[in-house]
Amino acid sequence: MSGNSFGKKFKITCFGESHGRCIGVVIDGCPPGLPLSLKEVQRELDKRRPGQDKISTPRKEEDEVKFLSGVFKEHTTGAPLCMLIWNKKVDSEVYEEYRIKPRPGHADYPALVKYKKFNDYRGGGRFSGRITAACVMAGAIAKKLLRTLNLEILAHTVEIGGVKSEKNPTLEEIRKITYTNAVRCADEKIAVLMKQEIMKAKNEGDSVGGIIECVVLNVPVGIGEPVFDNLDADIAKMLFSIPAVKGVEFGAGFNSSRIRGSENNDPYIIKDGKVATASNNAGGVLGGLSNGMPIIFRIAFKPTPSISKKQHTIDIEKMTETTIEVKGKHDPCVVPRAVPIVEAAAAIVLVDHALRFSLINTGEKIE
Amino acid sequence: MSGNSFGKKFKITCFGESHGRCIGVVIDGCPPGLPLSLKEVQRELDKRRPGQDKISTPRKEEDEVKFLSGVFKEHTTGAPLCMLIWNKKVDSEVYEEYRIKPRPGHADYPALVKYKKFNDYRGGGRFSGRITAACVMAGAIAKKLLRTLNLEILAHTVEIGGVKSEKNPTLEEIRKITYTNAVRCADEKIAVLMKQEIMKAKNEGDSVGGIIECVVLNVPVGIGEPVFDNLDADIAKMLFSIPAVKGVEFGAGFNSSRIRGSENNDPYIIKDGKVATASNNAGGVLGGLSNGMPIIFRIAFKPTPSISKKQHTIDIEKMTETTIEVKGKHDPCVVPRAVPIVEAAAAIVLVDHALRFSLINTGEKIE
Amino acid sequence: MSGNSFGKKFKITCFGESHGRCIGVVIDGCPPGLPLSLKEVQRELDKRRPGQDKISTPRKEEDEVKFLSGVFKEHTTGAPLCMLIWNKKVDSEVYEEYRIKPRPGHADYPALVKYKKFNDYRGGGRFSGRITAACVMAGAIAKKLLRTLNLEILAHTVEIGGVKSEKNPTLEEIRKITYTNAVRCADEKIAVLMKQEIMKAKNEGDSVGGIIECVVLNVPVGIGEPVFDNLDADIAKMLFSIPAVKGVEFGAGFNSSRIRGSENNDPYIIKDGKVATASNNAGGVLGGLSNGMPIIFRIAFKPTPSISKKQHTIDIEKMTETTIEVKGKHDPCVVPRAVPIVEAAAAIVLVDHALRFSLINTGEKIE
Amino acid sequence: MSGNSFGKKFKITCFGESHGRCIGVVIDGCPPGLPLSLKEVQRELDKRRPGQDKISTPRKEEDEVKFLSGVFKEHTTGAPLCMLIWNKKVDSEVYEEYRIKPRPGHADYPALVKYKKFNDYRGGGRFSGRITAACVMAGAIAKKLLRTLNLEILAHTVEIGGVKSEKNPTLEEIRKITYTNAVRCADEKIAVLMKQEIMKAKNEGDSVGGIIECVVLNVPVGIGEPVFDNLDADIAKMLFSIPAVKGVEFGAGFNSSRIRGSENNDPYIIKDGKVATASNNAGGVLGGLSNGMPIIFRIAFKPTPSISKKQHTIDIEKMTETTIEVKGKHDPCVVPRAVPIVEAAAAIVLVDHALRFSLINTGEKIE
Repeated sequence: MSGNSFGKKFKITCFGESHGRCIGVVIDGCPPGLPLSLKEVQRELDKRRPGQDKISTPRKEEDEVKFLSGVFKEHTTGAPLCMLIWNKKVDSEVYEEYRIKPRPGHADYPALVKYKKFNDYRGGGRFSGRITAACVMAGAIAKKLLRTLNLEILAHTVEIGGVKSEKNPTLEEIRKITYTNAVRCADEKIAVLMKQEIMKAKNEGDSVGGIIECVVLNVPVGIGEPVFDNLDADIAKMLFSIPAVKGVEFGAGFNSSRIRGSENNDPYIIKDGKVATASNNAGGVLGGLSNGMPIIFRIAFKPTPSISKKQHTIDIEKMTETTIEVKGKHDPCVVPRAVPIVEAAAAIVLVDHALRFSLINTGEKIE
Repeated sequence: MSGNSFGKKFKITCFGESHGRCIGVVIDGCPPGLPLSLKEVQRELDKRRPGQDKISTPRKEEDEVKFLSGVFKEHTTGAPLCMLIWNKKVDSEVYEEYRIKPRPGHADYPALVKYKKFNDYRGGGRFSGRITAACVMAGAIAKKLLRTLNLEILAHTVEIGGVKSEKNPTLEEIRKITYTNAVRCADEKIAVLMKQEIMKAKNEGDSVGGIIECVVLNVPVGIGEPVFDNLDADIAKMLFSIPAVKGVEFGAGFNSSRIRGSENNDPYIIKDGKVATASNNAGGVLGGLSNGMPIIFRIAFKPTPSISKKQHTIDIEKMTETTIEVKGKHDPCVVPRAVPIVEAAAAIVLVDHALRFSLINTGEKIE
Repeated sequence: MSGNSFGKKFKITCFGESHGRCIGVVIDGCPPGLPLSLKEVQRELDKRRPGQDKISTPRKEEDEVKFLSGVFKEHTTGAPLCMLIWNKKVDSEVYEEYRIKPRPGHADYPALVKYKKFNDYRGGGRFSGRITAACVMAGAIAKKLLRTLNLEILAHTVEIGGVKSEKNPTLEEIRKITYTNAVRCADEKIAVLMKQEIMKAKNEGDSVGGIIECVVLNVPVGIGEPVFDNLDADIAKMLFSIPAVKGVEFGAGFNSSRIRGSENNDPYIIKDGKVATASNNAGGVLGGLSNGMPIIFRIAFKPTPSISKKQHTIDIEKMTETTIEVKGKHDPCVVPRAVPIVEAAAAIVLVDHALRFSLINTGEKIE
Repeated sequence: MSGNSFGKKFKITCFGESHGRCIGVVIDGCPPGLPLSLKEVQRELDKRRPGQDKISTPRKEEDEVKFLSGVFKEHTTGAPLCMLIWNKKVDSEVYEEYRIKPRPGHADYPALVKYKKFNDYRGGGRFSGRITAACVMAGAIAKKLLRTLNLEILAHTVEIGGVKSEKNPTLEEIRKITYTNAVRCADEKIAVLMKQEIMKAKNEGDSVGGIIECVVLNVPVGIGEPVFDNLDADIAKMLFSIPAVKGVEFGAGFNSSRIRGSENNDPYIIKDGKVATASNNAGGVLGGLSNGMPIIFRIAFKPTPSISKKQHTIDIEKMTETTIEVKGKHDPCVVPRAVPIVEAAAAIVLVDHALRFSLINTGEKIE
C-alpha cells in the first residue's frame, strides 16, 4: 500500500489493522491554537460504536481515543497530531478459513494476490470497516475547525434495503431526529420500517444496504481547486475510501441526466440581499467550486458482504469450488454506523480545501 | 487554482484556457521507450471533435496536437512530455455579458468570487469543456502504455435524456457499434431515438444529459492503493473533474443498496482454470482493489447548462434579478463527446496505478 | 523521470530539452491578480543570457519568453501559468559522439543507463544548463510576488577558481556593482582578477568553478515547515537541482563546525525596538525556520565539465578506453550565469513557503 | 507545521515531541514480505542512545521501539508501518524560562512567533534532537530493504572542533573502527584527540561541532529523478532536516570550485569489465543520478547551542536584553550521536529512489 494519506493542507495519514494493536491517524497541518479535549473526539467516535442496538453487531467496542502528540495544554500546537484507539484482544481464528476460501464481496482475494501471504487477514486487516475509526477521529478535529467558519455537516439515512421516505426532511428534522433512532433516519416513521427491514434480513442470515444523504450548510463561495482537485471530486474520492460505498451523486445526481437543461439549471436570485439559487440541482457545486448553496450528496452502500447464509466460493489452494458460511458478529447493515463516517469524510475534505483557500485563521482567534 | 495535477507516478499537469492561446498538458512519469506518433494522439483527439454531426455544436475545432517535449525519434524519452493544441482566434465578446449576468448551471458566479475580476471568463476559461482536450491527449499516451498490459477500455452511451436500451450490449457490440453513430451508443436502434431526443431539445433551445458506461477489460488483480488511493476512489475523482458530471457508480451501484447481500455478493468460481466471479455486481473492484473482473462504472452527465431559452438570473453589479439567453454555438448534449473523455480519464488513472504497482516495464520491451 | 515538479503551494513543473523545441514551465498556484508583463520575465531571463562577454560562450541565445496561459489583461488569473522559450534550430551532430563516448563530469553515462537508448542526448537534453531557463522564468514570477512582502534577494559571485575577495561587500555594493561586471562580483577589483582566471583557463582549453553567495533580506520570522520541509532544507534541495552545484552551506556553514558554541551562537539583542541577533552565524535559519535575520547561503559550483582539452574516457559500445575532446561552444565558467539562477531558485522556495504560511494576499491588493 | 512527511514511494510521516508522550513514525510504502524483528530496529536506535560515554549527555534514554502496525508474523504486510518509542516522564520545568528568554542558536524564538503561545516548548518540542529517533527507526527499515540490493551505508566522524585526521580511512577501517570509539571516528588515534577536544569544551561549559562523512557503496547506476528530485538534492534536503546541520557537500564539494575542470572531471575507465571512474570528485552523482561509484558526502554540524556558559539574550515579554545559562544535561557535541542518524537519512532517501526506479522486489524473494 502507499495510499494511506489524504489531503494537502490538512493531511491525514492512517495506520492500524482490525485485529492489530490499534487504529491510528496522524494529522499534519492542523493549525496551532485550536482548543481540543479528548471528550470532543470521543463523542464523534461513540457515534459509530457498534452494539448500541439490536440492529448492529453485538460486538462490544469500547474505543477510547488517546492523543499521542500535537496537543498541549488542551490546544493544538501546530505539530502533527497523532490519535489512536487500542484494539482489545480478539479471537482471529475464524479468519484462517477466509485466507483459503475468500469471502464473496470482500477484499480477501485481491488482497491475497496483491500482498501475497503477508497480508494481515485477521478481521479483514486494513480492509475492515473498523479502519474508518481513523477517519472519524480526524473528522472530529476537522469539524471543530470548520465550526470557526460556521459550517454545519448533517448526514442522515434516506434509504435502507429499498425502504425510503417519500418526503424530504427539513433541516430541523435532520438535526433533531437523526441520532434519536438506531438507523439514523430523520423520518421517525420510516426509521421503524427501516429497522424492520434490517431485522428481517438479519433473521434470514442476510444483509441490506442503503443510501445516506449529506448536507453541508454555510459553505463559503469558491472552495475547490479545479481542474482536478474539484470540491466534488475530492469529496467523491474520500467517500469511495469508505468500505461498501458503490455510488456517489451530487444534487440531482443521476436524475439530472434525465431532465432538460432548462429544468436542471438553478436560476440565480437575490435572497436577503445575497446571491442564491432558486433550486439546488447542482448540490452546491458548480465547476468544482462551492457556489454558496448547501452542498448535497448521496452515497450508496452495498449490503454487508459478511452474511451467515451459505455462499458459493472457491478454495484458493486446491483451486476447487466450495461453500462458505461467514461466522462472527457482523452488522446486517452498515448504513447507520456509516452516518458519522460520512460526516467525518466530508469534514476532512472541506477543512483541507478551506485551508488551501486560506479561509481558516486559528491561533488566538479561535474560541 | 492549484489543483491542476493528477497522479503520482504518471503525473499530468494541465494548462490553458478555452479562448486563451492553447490547451496543453505535461506528463511527468511516462517511461522511456514507448513508440509514439502524433497520429496516435490525434486519433483520440478527433473522437471528441465537435462538428461531426448535426447534434453537436457547429463550431469548427480543428485541434491539431503538437509535441513540445519528451518525444525523440518517435519514442518517449522519459523526460516530461508536453503536448498542446493551439486555439484558433475566436470572438469572446459575448462572454462580457456573463461576467455581470452569471449563466445558471455554469461556474461563472463562484469563479468570479474566487478569482475576482482576474478570472479569464472568455469561453468559460478554465471551466470550459474544451479543457478536457488535455485529458484526451494524456489519455492517448496512457492507453498506449496500457496496451502493453493488454488492457482495453470501452466507454459507450447508455442513456440520453431518459432514452435507454433495455438490453445490455455485448462487448462485441460496444467495440463495433459505439463509434459508428453520433451518440456513441452500442445499440443502433436506440441510437436513433437518442439522436431524436437531442434534436428535439435543441430545436426547443434546450439541452439533455445522459449516462455513459465504461468497461475496462483485462485489469490485473490487485491494482489500487488503499485506503485512500483506492482504484474506484481515484477513478471517481478523475471523472468528477469532467465538467457536467453529477454522479458515479461502480457495478450494481445505487441499485446494490436495494438488494440483499446474498444477491449482491459475487460468488467466486473457477473459470478456465482461473479465479473469477459468477456475477459482477462489484464492478471489478473490492476493497479498492481490482479483483480481475471487468471494471464497470457509469457516469451521470447533467444537460448542457448553455441553452438559448430565456433563463432567470441576476445582475451581479446592480444586485438585481434579470434574464439571460445564452448565445453561441453549444452542444445540446455533451454526452456523445464525453465518451472518449471518459475513456481517457479511466486510462490515466489505470496507468498511474499500474505504474505504482510496478506492473509496466517499458524500454526496449514495448512494441 | 518523474521529479520535474517542485513546491507545494507555488508548484512549478518544467519541461523541454536543450535541443528540443522549447524550454517551458507551468506554475500552478500563482495567486490571481498579480500584474505581470512579458518584459518583467524577459529582464530576468536576459540576466542569464550567454554571449554577453568574452568569458561566456559565444553561442547566441536570444531567448524570448512567451506566456501560453494564466495571464489575462496583464494580470495573473489564478489559472496555471505556462511560459516558454522556443529553441532555435541548432546542430546536434556533435552529440552523436558522446552517446558512445561519455563526457567525463557529465550525466551522459548514467542517463544512458537509466533511459537507455531513448534518452534525448542532443545538447545534454534534460541535463543541460539550458534547462535552468525554466527556473529563471518561474523565479521572475516568484520574485514579483515576494516584492509584495518587501523581500529582496541578492546573489553575487564571491569566488572563482580560488580567486576571492578578502572583505565582505556591503549590501549597497552587492546591489550596485554585481551586475556591472561580467563575473557578477560585488568587488570590482576582484572581478578583474576573476575574469583573468576564467580567460586563462579558457585559453588552456580548461574551465574553472566558483562560489556564489546569496542574501535574502526582510524575510518574516517563522517561514519553513519542519521537520522535513525546513526552509534551509528546501532551499538546499532546489539549489542542488542546478547543474554543477556540489555544496551548499548556510551562515557560518562548514566553518561553524570548527568554532565553539559560545562563538557560534548568535546572541539575541533588541535593535530598533525589534528582536535581532548580534551576529548571523545561523544564516537566518534556526530549526528550519527563518528567524528574521538575513538568510545567507553559499553554493559551490564545480568547473564546467565540457572542456576542449583531451580527456580520458571509454567507448561504451566497444567497452574499451579511449579519449575525447569536447567540441562546441561552452562557458569556461558557469558561475557568472548562475547568479540569476540562484536568485530564482531562492525566490521559488521562499514564495512557496510564504504561501504555505499564508503570508501573501494578492487579488486587488497587489500593486 | 505541515512538512512532516518525506518520500514519494517510501513515505515517512513523523510525530511526537521531546517531552510529549512519544516519538513515532509511520512508513507508508514499505513493500510486503520483508522479514522484520524489533531487535533489528532496536539495534539502530541503540546507536544513537546517549549516556554511552562521558562525552555525551548523562541523560538516560532507554528507548524501546514498539511496532503499532504493519508487521504480522515478523514480516511487513504492505500496510502502513507505525513504530514509536514512549517517552519517560521528565521534568520540563526548566523550559519555562526559555519561553521568555530564547536560547541563542535554538529555534525557541522563531517557533514562538510561528506557533505563538501554543508551541510545545518542553524539551525543545518538535525542534529537539530527540525527534531524529523517528528517522533512525524508519532508517532501520530502509537499510534492511537496501540490503536486498547489496547497498552499504557507512557514516563516520571526520572532524570535531577542528580536529581531523590527515589521511583518508579505508573502507575496512570505517567498517571496523567507527563504532568502537565514542566519537565514531575511523581513525583511532584521532578519536582520542577528538574526545579530548569535546571534554575540554564540556569542562568550559561550552560545546563543539564537527563533520561527518558518509559513503554509500554498491548503488546501482541511474538512481535519482531529475530535474528536481535529484539524488543529491533529496539527500541534501533530508540531511538539512537533522538539527544542527549547516552545510552539505558531495564528492570534492566546495573544493571542486577551486580546481580546474581537467582535474575535477573523473575520467571513465573500464575496471573489472565494468564502467568506473578513475577518481570520484563527483561523489557518485552526476546530473542528479547515481553513476555507479560510491556516493560520498560530508555534513557540517554546528556546535550544540545549549551551553552552560552565560550568554546574552533578551526577555521577549519585557523586550529587554538579559543573560541566560542553559541548564540541563546536554551533549557537548552532537556529532557522534548524529552518525547513525546520517546513515538513516541516507537510507531513507535511497530506498525511496530505489523504489521509484522500481529496483526493489520484495515479497517471497526477500530473505
